[in-house]
Amino acid sequence: MERLDIAIIGCGPAGLSAAVNAGIRKRSVALLGGELCAPKLQQSTLVNNYLGLPEINGRELRDKFLDHARKAGIPVHQVRVTSVQENGEGGFTVSAGAKLFEARALVLATGVTVQNLIKGEKEYAGKGVGYCATCDGPLYRGKNVAVIAYTREGIEDANFLAEICSRVYLIAGGGLSTEGLKPEVEVIEAGSVQGITGNGFVSGVKIEGKNLPVDGVFIYRETYLPDRLVPGLTVIDNHIQVDRAFATNIKGIYAAGDCTGKPYQLAKAVGEGQIAALNAVKFLER
Amino acid sequence: MERLDIAIIGCGPAGLSAAVNAGIRKRSVALLGGELCAPKLQQSTLVNNYLGLPEINGRELRDKFLDHARKAGIPVHQVRVTSVQENGEGGFTVSAGAKLFEARALVLATGVTVQNLIKGEKEYAGKGVGYCATCDGPLYRGKNVAVIAYTREGIEDANFLAEICSRVYLIAGGGLSTEGLKPEVEVIEAGSVQGITGNGFVSGVKIEGKNLPVDGVFIYRETYLPDRLVPGLTVIDNHIQVDRAFATNIKGIYAAGDCTGKPYQLAKAVGEGQIAALNAVKFLER
Repeated sequence: MERLDIAIIGCGPAGLSAAVNAGIRKRSVALLGGELCAPKLQQSTLVNNYLGLPEINGRELRDKFLDHARKAGIPVHQVRVTSVQENGEGGFTVSAGAKLFEARALVLATGVTVQNLIKGEKEYAGKGVGYCATCDGPLYRGKNVAVIAYTREGIEDANFLAEICSRVYLIAGGGLSTEGLKPEVEVIEAGSVQGITGNGFVSGVKIEGKNLPVDGVFIYRETYLPDRLVPGLTVIDNHIQVDRAFATNIKGIYAAGDCTGKPYQLAKAVGEGQIAALNAVKFLER
Repeated sequence: MERLDIAIIGCGPAGLSAAVNAGIRKRSVALLGGELCAPKLQQSTLVNNYLGLPEINGRELRDKFLDHARKAGIPVHQVRVTSVQENGEGGFTVSAGAKLFEARALVLATGVTVQNLIKGEKEYAGKGVGYCATCDGPLYRGKNVAVIAYTREGIEDANFLAEICSRVYLIAGGGLSTEGLKPEVEVIEAGSVQGITGNGFVSGVKIEGKNLPVDGVFIYRETYLPDRLVPGLTVIDNHIQVDRAFATNIKGIYAAGDCTGKPYQLAKAVGEGQIAALNAVKFLER
C-alpha cells in the first residue's frame, strides 16, 4: 500500500502536466498509467501547434514530455487502475489489480474512448461484462468466457482466466499480436464483434452473425470509462463534468485533458493538467 | 484598413498560441500586441512547469514562443489597441491609434492588470482620464495634462500632446527611461501618484500630498482593461467571463489566458489560446 498526496490516473499529456505541476508544489504524487504513456501522441507524425516546439514529431514530443516528468522525479507506475473508492478518511483507495494506493486527492486524466462501445456493453456491465480478470475472474470458475482485447493486458488476463475457466475465447482487436498466449485459449479469427447478447445476464457474443455462447465477457482497451472507474462520477456524453477549477462533482477528484471534453488537443490537455493539479494542491492545503 | 478572419489582441503566451492554432486552420490572422510580447515571461528566471521544456529561462522560452509564431507566418503588429466596435456586418472594427483592422472574430488575450488602478481612475475614465492621446488628445488643446507612463508609448504620446497642449507633465513609473522626451514636457520627479482628483471631471493629480492641477490624465500601462476596450463585455472581478468554449458574452469574441482568471500560469494560457482559436475558427465556419 502506497500513500500519496495526489494520485494521477493516466499518463498522457494532461496527466504528465498535472504530475509536474503538483511535484513543483512539493506534493507526493505518482502517475498510474497504462502500458504506454500518451499512445495517441506516439502515433502523430507531425505536431505543429504546441507553442514553443514547432514542427515536432509526435514520438519526439512524447519523449520530451516523459523526460520532463522523469527530471521532476515523478514515479510512473505501469498499472491499470481497476477501481476507485472513497476510503472513509476523506481520501481515496485506488486499486490497480493487486496493487493498492491511498491518495488524498485524485486527478483523472484518462483520455477518451475513441473506440465505440460494443452493442450491449453498457447494458451488461457488471452483469457479465467486466474489465479486470483479477477482480471478477473468480466469478467465472468452470464457466466459459470471451476476452475482447485491444491491449497486451487482455492477453495476460486471458492466460489467467484459462487457469480457472472452462473455456476462454480471445477476440483480438486493433492488430494486437497474440504472442505469449497460452494454447488453452481459443483465438477467434473472425472479424468484428457485433454485440453482446443475454437476457438479464450475458449469454453470448455475436460475431459475424454467429453467437458464441459465453457466461462472461472481459474487455481490454487503452482507455477507461471514467464513471465505471469512479462510482458516482458525473459523466455527460462520455466526458467528465468539471467546473472552471477542473473539479468534478466528487470533492477531492479533479479531471483534465480529453476526458473533460473537446477539442482533443495537446495544449488544452497540458493546460488543464496544470490547472487541475494546482487546484488539487489548494484542496489539500485546506 | 486590414481585413482579417481573426484578430488576436495581446501577444503573450495565450495570444501566440491562439495565433499558431488559427493559422494552422488556414485563417488569416494577426497579433495586435504591445511593444514587448510576453513581458512577464521575459522576467522569469526559471520556468519548470511548461511540459516538454524543463528548467528553461523565461527569456529563452519567450524566444521559442515568438520563433514558433514567426515560423507559422503570423504577422505581429506592435500597436496598442484603443477600441473595439461591432462593424454592423457581424464583425468588428479594431482601432489601434490611427490604424484600423476589420476582423470577423476576435480573441482577447490581454493579460491581467497586475498594477492596481490609480485611485479615481475608474471614476474619471472618459471624464478626463484617457488611454490614447491620438484619440482624445485634441480635446485638450491649449489645456494642461498629465501623462502617467509605464511604457514607451507614454513617452511618445507625451511628445505628441506637447504639440497641442499648454503644459504636459510626465510621471514615469516602473523605472521607465525618459530618453527621447521633448524638452517641453515637464518631468515630475516626485514619487508615486496617490490619486486623481476632480469634481465630475478631472481637475488634478495628487502626488506626494500636493495637487498638480490638470484638465486631463493619460495613462499608459502594459496591460489592458478589457471592458474599457470592448463596450458591453462582461467582466467579473477583473476577469473576462467565458464559457467552456472560451466564448465571451459577445458573439464572435473569445478570450484566453490570464484575462479569463486564475491561476496565472503559462500552460493554462497556451491551452486556452488553443481552445479559443479553434472555437473562433468553428464560429467562422458557420
